[in-house]
Formats: sequence, structure tokens, C-alpha cells
Amino acid sequence: MRFSLNQWTTRHWPLPDLAAGCAAAGVSGVGLWREPVAEYGAARTAKLVRDHGLTVTSLCRGGFFREPDAVAVNRRAVEEAAELGAPVLCLVSGGLPEGSRDLDGAVARVADVLAELAPYAGEHGVRLAIEPLHPMYCSDRCVVTTLAQALDLAAPHPSDQVGVMIDTYHLWWDPAVWDGIARAGAQDRIALFQVADWITPLPEGVLTGRGMLGDGCIDLRRFRAAVDAAGYTGPIEAEIFNEALWAMPGPEALSLTLARYREHVE
Amino acid sequence: MRFSLNQWTTRHWPLPDLAAGCAAAGVSGVGLWREPVAEYGAARTAKLVRDHGLTVTSLCRGGFFREPDAVAVNRRAVEEAAELGAPVLCLVSGGLPEGSRDLDGAVARVADVLAELAPYAGEHGVRLAIEPLHPMYCSDRCVVTTLAQALDLAAPHPSDQVGVMIDTYHLWWDPAVWDGIARAGAQDRIALFQVADWITPLPEGVLTGRGMLGDGCIDLRRFRAAVDAAGYTGPIEAEIFNEALWAMPGPEALSLTLARYREHVE
Repeated sequence: MRFSLNQWTTRHWPLPDLAAGCAAAGVSGVGLWREPVAEYGAARTAKLVRDHGLTVTSLCRGGFFREPDAVAVNRRAVEEAAELGAPVLCLVSGGLPEGSRDLDGAVARVADVLAELAPYAGEHGVRLAIEPLHPMYCSDRCVVTTLAQALDLAAPHPSDQVGVMIDTYHLWWDPAVWDGIARAGAQDRIALFQVADWITPLPEGVLTGRGMLGDGCIDLRRFRAAVDAAGYTGPIEAEIFNEALWAMPGPEALSLTLARYREHVE
Repeated sequence: MRFSLNQWTTRHWPLPDLAAGCAAAGVSGVGLWREPVAEYGAARTAKLVRDHGLTVTSLCRGGFFREPDAVAVNRRAVEEAAELGAPVLCLVSGGLPEGSRDLDGAVARVADVLAELAPYAGEHGVRLAIEPLHPMYCSDRCVVTTLAQALDLAAPHPSDQVGVMIDTYHLWWDPAVWDGIARAGAQDRIALFQVADWITPLPEGVLTGRGMLGDGCIDLRRFRAAVDAAGYTGPIEAEIFNEALWAMPGPEALSLTLARYREHVE
């Protein structure tokens, strides 16, 4: 089973309950987030997931490269991923510095910090996954907005150190995405595949309006077929930021997500 | 003076006041919208702008090609543009049909309707301007999301019949936009240049959150220099959808926009 539950899909579900709930539902993969892991304790989380027979498919998230302490912060994130046995650290690259209009400069900064981090990640057996975010987040969250750009940023590094994240929510609109997925596969760069659907109207701030699988307009199965055709055989993480979903009890939210995954992705 | 006031920037300013206000401010170009023009009367509008020594730089907007009557509706829009003396009809291509996940099909529909419209526009001396909209509008407003894609759609048609719109608000995030502008210039496809700034947080529905020139993170002058370098010598329309701006009296809104244009674009 390739399905993995990204923790933010059920963000109010306490870690021990989430681990038990996944095990009970036959789900063997989870994508974890640094903040709740830190709160519960990294070593304790590692034991918890191990005790429930779970695999950590990714740690979210490193990045935010515009911060002055980005290298140090991301090194700690790499160490945490290694401690959890997560093969992939997701990178949200960060937006423009306050008051800046220098988009090229911000992207150059991403490249510079990546060059410092990549060997460190390699030493820890962790792969950095550059995540292109939807262009509506370009100014405040992530200056990397297309798969082609993420692949260009990954290119200078060994593919086992730096890959890319393919997230349907962020990439579905791009006419070049199918070529990009094929290129990513040919270059062995697909670090992880995440799924969420696109619905409108977008909420204020556009952070919490992702759609449950099947509720929106993304051809999710075409994406799954494309990453498969590109040679990707890894986990498929459901990562859905949605207020209505967050209001549901964890087991119900997982059950719904799993059913929709089977209907629209698998 | 290349500055032109797009009517939607001061959307509550009645047409006669807007015409008088532009003339008084030394602004000689206006971009008009079909709905207020229809309300005032197309012939009457044509006379009004002529009497004030104004040039109509564009008519907004045709497009919405997913509608069954798209050809007929857009032919009427071409006729109205001709009646107003507007050299350019802006095209917002429309989103996905209700319930559809067929993005490629929707883009193919855009290409099909364009093929029917282009000669008709040519006969009327009106140039169709395909406008790539920001990808956050892909599902519900415009399946054309990048300048490269707009140029591909324009390519089969004579450049005096079909061009592209370059709007900073929609395109600023795209790492390929500078190459796209150069390509658009080399192919003589730049029909119009529009400016607005990018600010966050985005409002619910993401329609009315454009930034006043200089308030956001777009390097507007770099865009102006790029279209100039690509050979574009036409008008520069300020098109800013913003609730705070709409709440201002027309003359104040125009004065502010003009001052910011001089500071950040000219």
C-alpha cells in the first residue's frame, strides 16, 4: 500500500492517537511535521511510529532560506529526519525578504543554501525535496513556483541528496507539468508525491482551502499515472489543509481520505 | 504619455466623470469595460471619449470560451471594440466547465474559438489579446496561465489579429517570463502592457486584492524595461482591482495611480 497520511491532513489528531489510528486502518506510512514532533519529542516519536509498524515517509518541513540562520535550522531538520528514519525532508523555500522586489536574488539564495545543505543531508541519509509551491505563495512562502525551476535548482546536486516534491495542488495548472514529471523521472529526482485537490473559492490568506481528493478539478489519477510512468514507486502522501477536514475526528478524516484515495488516485 | 487608466481601477467613477477627470489630469488613454459601456451606450461612449480627446486603449473583455455561445458573444465584443476605436480586445479565456477535470480539453476549446474569431477581429481592425491570468484563477476564470502558453495559442494566427497581454500582476512570479517577453516581442505579439502590484494577504476569492503600484513586491520598472526592450511602444494601462482604491473618489484614485506610475513604472 502506497498511501501515506501527512500529519497536517489531520492536524489536531494527537500523535499517539494518529499512530494507533493509522495502524488500525492498515495505513503504514505517515508524513510528520517538525512542530508536533518537537512537542512530543523526536526520540519518543521515532519509538512510537516504530512500535506501531509505521514508516515515516517524510518530514515537513525545512526551507525558508531567506532567514539568516537558514543553514543551521535546516541542518537540525536534517538530523531530525534522520532520527525519525524519514528518507525525505520537504523544503518550502521561503518568499521574498520584507520589502524586497528581488525575486532572482531570492532564488539565488535558495541555490546557495542548498549547496551548503546537500552534502550534510547526504551524510545523514536524508534526501532534500525541493517543493515548488503554487505561484499564489511566491511572495510570502516559496519563490520556487514550477517543477522546471525546482529541477534546475536540484540539477547541480547528486540525485540521492536533492530531489523534488510533486504535489498535485501546487502543480496542476502548469501546462509544462507533464514534461516536467517525465524529466524528473529521467533524472531520478522524484523524492515524493503528494496529493490534494483544487477547489474554489479560495479562503482569505489562501492557506486552508485545499480540497478533499475528488472534490475538485484536478485529474489526480493522471498525475499518479504520470509519476508511475516516470519510474516513481514510492509513497503517495495525502496532504490536505482544509478547515472542514480539521474539524472532523481523526479516525473519520483518515477513513474519508483513504476512501477517496482509493476512488481517485490508486 | 503612455499611461492609460483602465476603467476598473476606478470602477465606481461614472463614465462622463471619468472622461472629464482623465482629460483634466492630462491622461489621454482609457481602457474600458463592456458592462459600463453597454450601460452608457456604445455610440454615446465613443462620442464621449472623442469629445474629451481620449484614446480607448483596450476593451475588456472577451473570452470565457467555455460558454456555448462564446463565438457569438465575442463577435459582438469585437464589434463594440471597433465602434469605440479600441485597437485591442482583452480575452480572459475562461476556466473549466462545471465538474470537468479536463484542462487540456478546455485549452483546446480556447484554440478552437480563437480560430473562429481571429479573422473576424482582423476584418474589424481589432487585435485579440490573449491574457494569461495568474494560476490561482485557472479553474474558474482562465485556463491560460503562462505567457509561453498564450504565445503558443497565438502562434497559428497573424500577429495583427492575435497578440498577448502582459500584465505584471499575473506574470511576475514566472521564472520564464523574461524569456517570454523577449519571444513575444520578436514575434510582434505584445498587444498591451498592464500594471498592478502584488500584495498579501490575498482576500477571500482572490479577486480584489491587487496592489497599488509600489505597494507590493513586483519589480514594475524591470517589466517596463523588458517590454520596451522587446520593441513595445504602446500604452501602459494601470488595472488595479482593490477595494480600498474603489472606495476613493475617482479624481483622488487617478491622481494616486498616476503619481505611483511616475515613481515606479515610467
